[in-house]
Amino acid sequence: VAPLTKTAGVVSVLEFRVRFCETDLMGIVHHANYLPYFEMGRVEWLRERSVTYAAWAEQGLHLAVAEVSLRYKAPAKFDDLLALHTCLAEVRSHSLKFTYRLMRGEKLLNEGMTLLACVNNTGALTRLSSDMLQAFKM
Amino acid sequence: VAPLTKTAGVVSVLEFRVRFCETDLMGIVHHANYLPYFEMGRVEWLRERSVTYAAWAEQGLHLAVAEVSLRYKAPAKFDDLLALHTCLAEVRSHSLKFTYRLMRGEKLLNEGMTLLACVNNTGALTRLSSDMLQAFKM
Amino acid sequence: VAPLTKTAGVVSVLEFRVRFCETDLMGIVHHANYLPYFEMGRVEWLRERSVTYAAWAEQGLHLAVAEVSLRYKAPAKFDDLLALHTCLAEVRSHSLKFTYRLMRGEKLLNEGMTLLACVNNTGALTRLSSDMLQAFKM
Amino acid sequence: VAPLTKTAGVVSVLEFRVRFCETDLMGIVHHANYLPYFEMGRVEWLRERSVTYAAWAEQGLHLAVAEVSLRYKAPAKFDDLLALHTCLAEVRSHSLKFTYRLMRGEKLLNEGMTLLACVNNTGALTRLSSDMLQAFKM
Repeated sequence: VAPLTKTAGVVSVLEFRVRFCETDLMGIVHHANYLPYFEMGRVEWLRERSVTYAAWAEQGLHLAVAEVSLRYKAPAKFDDLLALHTCLAEVRSHSLKFTYRLMRGEKLLNEGMTLLACVNNTGALTRLSSDMLQAFKM
Repeated sequence: VAPLTKTAGVVSVLEFRVRFCETDLMGIVHHANYLPYFEMGRVEWLRERSVTYAAWAEQGLHLAVAEVSLRYKAPAKFDDLLALHTCLAEVRSHSLKFTYRLMRGEKLLNEGMTLLACVNNTGALTRLSSDMLQAFKM
Repeated sequence: VAPLTKTAGVVSVLEFRVRFCETDLMGIVHHANYLPYFEMGRVEWLRERSVTYAAWAEQGLHLAVAEVSLRYKAPAKFDDLLALHTCLAEVRSHSLKFTYRLMRGEKLLNEGMTLLACVNNTGALTRLSSDMLQAFKM
Repeated sequence: VAPLTKTAGVVSVLEFRVRFCETDLMGIVHHANYLPYFEMGRVEWLRERSVTYAAWAEQGLHLAVAEVSLRYKAPAKFDDLLALHTCLAEVRSHSLKFTYRLMRGEKLLNEGMTLLACVNNTGALTRLSSDMLQAFKM
């Protein structure tokens, strides 16, 4: 079993607005569009810790999504100002897990999890680099 | 607890090609794009049973996504010819569950589940209509 | 011919970052994704003038896109920090035209135009409301 | 001026259904989603002439979108069965132009144009390969 590093569970909060194109004919944000929000959340989580995901991508290291789950509680609407809480929940040798809570004010709209596997440009599973571990242990 | 109807677990298979715009800079289908595939799968599952989801939407009944989960095994690429296996796994009084297996030839690319809640135009939870139950029991 | 109101050509600038999911297998932003950027630009153009597009939508007035054109000069990439310059170029009785220039620093990435027609909830062409004219003449 | 090859203006027709996720809160297909349709149209135009766009992409040749324009006449809705007419309108040494007409039955929903420039993996403008010219002259 891959060794597990306890993280501080540090949370970052990202505020953003719902775009018109993200809604569907039910008048709410289409359920698939929350995954790009979560992705944006973890990119900003890293930026706050002085890491640009793009820099890793240029080095040929990617955090490929291996597993996702989401529970939808209430819909977001066009132009809503949302706050996404992104939390690094777990770090292993080749993977890590982020959890997410999407809020509109005090209201929880949905919550989810993504398990990310570290892969190289050919898609092969790779150990997290020391740069990555450094960033994730903060 | 909502009463559970055992279904025949009938599976429908939908073939389609990956669009260029569905890829990302890793050269593979972006992980969020599988949710629209699953959605397309259940729309076609219904059509094969002579139900058009659009007709229910016009009656003000929607199957809102309440929960999703996905496990990614291997990536799909641009122009891949894929076969999505959509299975009605469970029917309850106000909700139902579909499971999905996305294949490229013999290879399983990913598998997932969506829990759908029946809601009206205002988003309130509603019993599945008798039309719906009829369709889902086939 | 619909009467033409000369506008001050007021420009608003919106800064934002390219999302990972907006790229394609060429490693650049997929060309279709600039239209949502432009849409976001005009929503923010209005907000700066104390108008929320959502409020008009709730009143049953929409600015439907009747025509678009874009010239792509250079690609945007993942995580680029972009500045979108949105300009109200023309106001007529039932329509208006915005023009856009998307910049990365000093570099022009693309420029475009959208012609918007005022329509009601049934899609019928409607005169711009006095609220709208007020906003657009600022 | 780049030499112009007159084409037979051969048209291909692609039938497909509107996906749920392609609609917006106006209950119609979001205007940006027609560009992926057009892209799908030209991919299928090529396939009918025994060319897979993916094969060119693997050789490092891409047809980058340099310019687009669209005129929207009537909206498409969820689950509409549409027919996209894709026409190669012009071939030059480094670029080509496709035009599109999107129909629902006898009704024209919109029409557009894309100017495509041949570029290599680094994005530099390149002559159309002889393979490409062969395909486009059919």
